[in-house]
Amino acid sequence: MYKFYYFPNSCSVASHIALEQAGADYEPVRVGFETDEQRQDKYLAINPKGRVPALVTERGILTENPAILMFISQTCPAAKLAPLDDAFAMSRIHSFNAYLSSTVHVAHAHGVRGYRWVDDEAAISEMKRKMPQVVGDSFALIESEMFKGPWVMGEEYSIADIYLFTIAQWLEADRVDPTRFPKVLEHRNRMLEIPVVKKVLALQV
Amino acid sequence: MYKFYYFPNSCSVASHIALEQAGADYEPVRVGFETDEQRQDKYLAINPKGRVPALVTERGILTENPAILMFISQTCPAAKLAPLDDAFAMSRIHSFNAYLSSTVHVAHAHGVRGYRWVDDEAAISEMKRKMPQVVGDSFALIESEMFKGPWVMGEEYSIADIYLFTIAQWLEADRVDPTRFPKVLEHRNRMLEIPVVKKVLALQV
Repeated sequence: MYKFYYFPNSCSVASHIALEQAGADYEPVRVGFETDEQRQDKYLAINPKGRVPALVTERGILTENPAILMFISQTCPAAKLAPLDDAFAMSRIHSFNAYLSSTVHVAHAHGVRGYRWVDDEAAISEMKRKMPQVVGDSFALIESEMFKGPWVMGEEYSIADIYLFTIAQWLEADRVDPTRFPKVLEHRNRMLEIPVVKKVLALQV
Repeated sequence: MYKFYYFPNSCSVASHIALEQAGADYEPVRVGFETDEQRQDKYLAINPKGRVPALVTERGILTENPAILMFISQTCPAAKLAPLDDAFAMSRIHSFNAYLSSTVHVAHAHGVRGYRWVDDEAAISEMKRKMPQVVGDSFALIESEMFKGPWVMGEEYSIADIYLFTIAQWLEADRVDPTRFPKVLEHRNRMLEIPVVKKVLALQV
């Protein structure tokens, strides 16, 4: 059985949905960000980066959504969360997820965790001010260039849908109007109707 | 034959080394960042993100180092660039590469491309000032927690070594003393002795 470390409504929702959709045997463990539990020794022994998600397996610990999503899709093939027999299609998914991880999530983080990159309060405010523009630009690119429809990669649902949904859930909090992105918004609404997604969101407390 | 779009000494060096080590049939195409070629329509038709690397294949275009490295390792198995038959070991590599992409490279970018996240000159200066600390902290974590030795993942060389080497090459320019990280530094020196690495670096002009 896996142990899965998460914080509600963080990016760990992505790996959480994948675990549920795969029917994986796992125990969810809530990390108390409110009390800075992620920066205390007990959690740092699990993930020295002090972040979620982290998946504890019999062979070791996995971190970072793109890696955990890849792992779940490959070890639970019956769930059909990725085109496992097609290296090119898998790499396209990995490319999309890398964009979410290293550009879109990073853009979002400038609105809430600017202290990672600057100490000065004025600079933190300046990051917060520009953040909606940067997040909006990255979603505009997803809408116009990357999203194939009806799912991210076209006809087949995949881990790219799970991850996009997770980050698209933050748009309003990031002060970005989701109606600018009709395909992304319709996709988000469709994802919200999936029973497993509802179940995972209900756990995010 | 692939077309591979790169800019010298950028993160595209990673995918470039992998293509050479795999013996892939590819044509390298230099993108003229000096003249903002990456932001002009001709290149944006290849990669709408306006970044390198981009790999044009018969089936479509791949971007983002973690995805291109994964693709090359899987489509050129004889080069033994990754433990292809082991989903957990592959995911550990993806986890390491995701950290390089979404944390370490991003930290570096705050020193040279702060305009991505702020408009204000004072805030850009503040990012530049803190950048060596953030890059140094991420390499400290690699040195103490992630690097197994003699290669990143232990006994077997992999795409994680290629990517770490590429970003570790920037340490001096990022005003970080590499002697703080003896394992990373010894690894970098060892990588520099590999003939294919020498060949790719000689192409970075």
